[in-house]
Amino acid sequence: MTLMKVSSFAAGQWIAPGANARPIASAITGLPLAEAGGADLDMQAMIDYARDKGGPALREMGFHDRAKMLKALAMELGQHKQELYDLSFDTGATQSDHMIDIDGGVGTVFVFASKGRREMPDGKVYIDGEIEQLSRNGTFLGMHIATPLQGVAVHINAFNFPVWGMLEKLAPTLLAGVPAIVKPATATSYVTEAAVRIMLDSGILPEGALQLISGGTGDLLDRLGPQDIVSFTGSAQTASMLRSNPNILKNSVRFVAEQDSLNASILGPDVTPSTAEFDLFIKEVHREMTTKAGQKCTAIRRIIAPEDQVQNVIEALSARLDKTVIGDPRADGVRMGALVSAGQKVDVLEKAAAIGSESKLVYGNPDDNDFAGDVDAGAFVKPMLFHCETPDTATIVHECEAFGPVSTIMGYRDIAHAIELANKGEGSLVASVITGSGDVARDVAMGAGAFHGRLYFNNATSMKESTGHGSPLPHMVHGGPGRAGGGEEMGGVRGVLHYMQRTAIQGSPDILTSICGRWVPGSTEITGPAHPFTRKYGELSIGETLHTKSRKVTLADIEKFAHFTGDTFYAHMDSEAAKRNPFFPERVAHGYLLLSFAAGLFVEPNEGPVLANTGLDNLRFMKPVEAGDSMKVRLTVKAKTRRTDEYGEVRWHVTLTNQDDDLVAEYELLTMNAY
Amino acid sequence: MTLMKVSSFAAGQWIAPGANARPIASAITGLPLAEAGGADLDMQAMIDYARDKGGPALREMGFHDRAKMLKALAMELGQHKQELYDLSFDTGATQSDHMIDIDGGVGTVFVFASKGRREMPDGKVYIDGEIEQLSRNGTFLGMHIATPLQGVAVHINAFNFPVWGMLEKLAPTLLAGVPAIVKPATATSYVTEAAVRIMLDSGILPEGALQLISGGTGDLLDRLGPQDIVSFTGSAQTASMLRSNPNILKNSVRFVAEQDSLNASILGPDVTPSTAEFDLFIKEVHREMTTKAGQKCTAIRRIIAPEDQVQNVIEALSARLDKTVIGDPRADGVRMGALVSAGQKVDVLEKAAAIGSESKLVYGNPDDNDFAGDVDAGAFVKPMLFHCETPDTATIVHECEAFGPVSTIMGYRDIAHAIELANKGEGSLVASVITGSGDVARDVAMGAGAFHGRLYFNNATSMKESTGHGSPLPHMVHGGPGRAGGGEEMGGVRGVLHYMQRTAIQGSPDILTSICGRWVPGSTEITGPAHPFTRKYGELSIGETLHTKSRKVTLADIEKFAHFTGDTFYAHMDSEAAKRNPFFPERVAHGYLLLSFAAGLFVEPNEGPVLANTGLDNLRFMKPVEAGDSMKVRLTVKAKTRRTDEYGEVRWHVTLTNQDDDLVAEYELLTMNAY
Repeated sequence: MTLMKVSSFAAGQWIAPGANARPIASAITGLPLAEAGGADLDMQAMIDYARDKGGPALREMGFHDRAKMLKALAMELGQHKQELYDLSFDTGATQSDHMIDIDGGVGTVFVFASKGRREMPDGKVYIDGEIEQLSRNGTFLGMHIATPLQGVAVHINAFNFPVWGMLEKLAPTLLAGVPAIVKPATATSYVTEAAVRIMLDSGILPEGALQLISGGTGDLLDRLGPQDIVSFTGSAQTASMLRSNPNILKNSVRFVAEQDSLNASILGPDVTPSTAEFDLFIKEVHREMTTKAGQKCTAIRRIIAPEDQVQNVIEALSARLDKTVIGDPRADGVRMGALVSAGQKVDVLEKAAAIGSESKLVYGNPDDNDFAGDVDAGAFVKPMLFHCETPDTATIVHECEAFGPVSTIMGYRDIAHAIELANKGEGSLVASVITGSGDVARDVAMGAGAFHGRLYFNNATSMKESTGHGSPLPHMVHGGPGRAGGGEEMGGVRGVLHYMQRTAIQGSPDILTSICGRWVPGSTEITGPAHPFTRKYGELSIGETLHTKSRKVTLADIEKFAHFTGDTFYAHMDSEAAKRNPFFPERVAHGYLLLSFAAGLFVEPNEGPVLANTGLDNLRFMKPVEAGDSMKVRLTVKAKTRRTDEYGEVRWHVTLTNQDDDLVAEYELLTMNAY
Repeated sequence: MTLMKVSSFAAGQWIAPGANARPIASAITGLPLAEAGGADLDMQAMIDYARDKGGPALREMGFHDRAKMLKALAMELGQHKQELYDLSFDTGATQSDHMIDIDGGVGTVFVFASKGRREMPDGKVYIDGEIEQLSRNGTFLGMHIATPLQGVAVHINAFNFPVWGMLEKLAPTLLAGVPAIVKPATATSYVTEAAVRIMLDSGILPEGALQLISGGTGDLLDRLGPQDIVSFTGSAQTASMLRSNPNILKNSVRFVAEQDSLNASILGPDVTPSTAEFDLFIKEVHREMTTKAGQKCTAIRRIIAPEDQVQNVIEALSARLDKTVIGDPRADGVRMGALVSAGQKVDVLEKAAAIGSESKLVYGNPDDNDFAGDVDAGAFVKPMLFHCETPDTATIVHECEAFGPVSTIMGYRDIAHAIELANKGEGSLVASVITGSGDVARDVAMGAGAFHGRLYFNNATSMKESTGHGSPLPHMVHGGPGRAGGGEEMGGVRGVLHYMQRTAIQGSPDILTSICGRWVPGSTEITGPAHPFTRKYGELSIGETLHTKSRKVTLADIEKFAHFTGDTFYAHMDSEAAKRNPFFPERVAHGYLLLSFAAGLFVEPNEGPVLANTGLDNLRFMKPVEAGDSMKVRLTVKAKTRRTDEYGEVRWHVTLTNQDDDLVAEYELLTMNAY
């Protein structure tokens, strides 16, 4: 049988494994399947290729261009899923595992594509937060922007999710505008290599945006500089070793670590057997123990149940585990496959034995090797459930992770005790609570939030649509403090910003407008050649401004508006009551009357490129308008965002002022405008 | 003369220096002034005191309570400024330097107090970003919260700003709800100790919130855990040593480093001599060279000017430096004081000599020791300006910082070259550009943003109100990549979040509402005993909801509104034109008509606790309303924020639906309500 050659893609070339390549065995048969590594890769050439080709090409694009690129990549990968499924069985994964790894990975890219379009600007500079008023007269302001790091992102991934593990890092990196060098774990690198080939062959990515190291990283980390970033998923030990690299420390190279942790799931004190929530808890725990044969960094390692529910949980979970068919993942009916390798099996059994020295094995048998299919030489192991009767004094259960289908149950007295036990893991990626009680949820959030990167609550209301304790979603941050590595990935735009530098910007309004491509109040106003509502999307400039004529607001207007709309609030109708109010000197005009009159002043009535008023943001009424006051409007193009092939969104900054030029109201108006 | 004893405050006790205390000399006279260190501090007891007393007490308060506490602290410090000024002269600082250190520090605390009140919730949970729709029917949602770290913050500060350096870290830490152990640099620790005494004596802080180490930190760092954080300001060498501490690495202890860097200032290519901007440039550079005798982590070390302006800059700057009186900071007319110590003087002269091996000294003389006052034994040094004629190949000028009144000028060919030179510092805290050109500003932001924590632009428009190249402001992030340490401090709420853990939360709407104390759409609605506008602030519950009756919108209404307001936009008036529009099936009602009718439906007209409608956020029109459709309103209390002693802000979530229960519009309404 010919071994698959797992190649690297370095500085534009595919490079096959070298003479000292390492063999990779099938997790199912134990037979050699592929080989990787041993090639003599020029790490500096790879870094330079990324920095000099990939980075500039990606930075030349805006966020929306890169989002479109991600969408195309996701579609391309989606069309080649079957190839990836076919390869993935030999990692020990079942078809449902493939759905998590491959479909989940593709889905993650789609979400980042969508968030890039919806939540990031149609331009090259990301704006973080609001304008800061640093001066009395507004001639000197502050803001924060983010721009892409001008180096390369090195992604060092774990073996368990060869596709998702790559894509969950790659999508935010590319969206940020940063090229990546991907280094998968060797054990499953043949699946990653296939996915990288699909992406590179598609021609969607600019040259230099993506490279692959199959095998060791050599002196790569010794060559990184302050604009580079390392994003690592794996063991605490490896993370510590890598992040203490003197070059990494000297250059303050960003180092994001996501480490396996002792994640917990708590059965709420309000849940009793034979309720939907009890069954849900059993289902969630069972899924986390058996999916990917328990090789998930988010898997539930510690089951925390009310003391008087421990036996009920053990029984229900054991019954469900009994029904789980384990064996060759290609065989019909199999629900749990193999560990990734024989070495991993040895490690899991060792760790389980360590846990067993402190806790009692209540389900499973490490010597049980009866599996579905002809898989005697595979890396299979049966689920094991331990019961820790002394969780307050036990240490191994809170520190030692058997990275397989192994979990430990422990009892708690009250919710404070449950929180204490959950926090004994000293930092985890996720803790879950099955509860119908908002009070329990709040207690856990306040008491355990600081120890966990994600808190997952589920109950009868949410269970049909819930996504699972163990599923990191692209929308939510993934990572955690302490034992989980102190890192953070994904979380939508948050994850993109990890690959960018946040910079404080100070200057005059015009300088800020030039930098961010959005009109900053106080900047120069541009007078266009015609009413801005008569101008197409593409014709409008940032800063283009309309000043309307003035309109007097009369008492008759206020009364008419009140009776027409039904809004006869006392501040508009009753002079004495208005005077008793701390905000008003007299009867005042309705805020909505002012907005409506403002529209009457700035709208161009004839059919034109403005298609609709779609919304309004940040409206603040600053000064009341009394009968006899007048008002006028300034309307300025603040920002533009292309939305479809036919129209884009224009965000207008609007101020209403009175006869004394005092600010009456300020807001941002949204319209859709034809190109 | 009796030496000041610089004490520590550990686990509730003031502890005087021990037998092996280190003497501290006056920077002005060189004579011993104080002694610090040598005490046998129990680091574990300090950590426990913070974790067990300070943390729980601070977490028991909400953000607004802690903001009020900060305001009280700032006022207390403000009342004792003179004591701190008096002490500070001996650090070598002038009265203007005191304004930066002491008044600047107090001002920073005031800004955090204000931001805590204005930008953080009136509660204990910070909400980061928007709700994530994780399910089709909305029964399972996501959000992000931040809660205080449950450990202790260790602040290791530099010698140059004994008050500001402490307060800029302490204010965000306390606002976050985290206790601090402050370790000032020994050379100026007597000033920090005095400021700490003022704060502790005031009784404003809860027990355990603040401790002080005067002297060494012993094994403190070896005892920190995953909920603790180290925030360091100082040299790259010390930072590297501390952050590679095995315990810090093992526990993923957060480590924020702010290191001195080779900050640059660029004279824009558009600026010529005898313009306001040229003079401004000279003023900014001069100020950064002489303030604190150049001992500022943000000082301008590299002056980057157009090649043909280099001589002009040297001449103008030399003339200005000539006029600067240097000497005893207590003496009249003195504008620049001493370095902090004789040791520091040796270091600066050594580094200046190294720079001189590559660049030419064009102003100053290291052997010139003619200073104002009787200060022969003081740590004074005259400003030195070097000219580097080969900035592309030179290395020392981009790597070696003389932490005193020393700067180097270099010429550039075009703005791309200037950016390249600025970035050769491999990461800095701040770079400035004096330019009137928006294009130059944009080029620098895109080309150099990723290398600098702050970009400061100044020109004739902003110069009167600008805050200075070298002034980190509490509103703006302070820190920078690479050589600047890769850390970030301040930046308003951003700086507070460094002391909190961000946690992703997933669950049903009701669970999310319970956790965050804000009503999440989809949560249970509460029916109050009366119309919510008749209920006082304190009586309203989160989730309290009003459903209004329905109102039909007629063509007559649309016409009446159009002619009354003047908003005769074609989509409301012209059936054919409306049909040609991609969004509308027919003539539709004005958005402002819908808002106004909505108010008419939900407003309670009689005088009551609702004082005013102050604003509106996030309005989106989802579906048009045609003549003949009806509309109704749901109004729900989303959030409450106390604002003054008399009233608070209520944020209402509002939806408009039509006769088919389709969503027509959604927004948030703000009112002020009496207690």
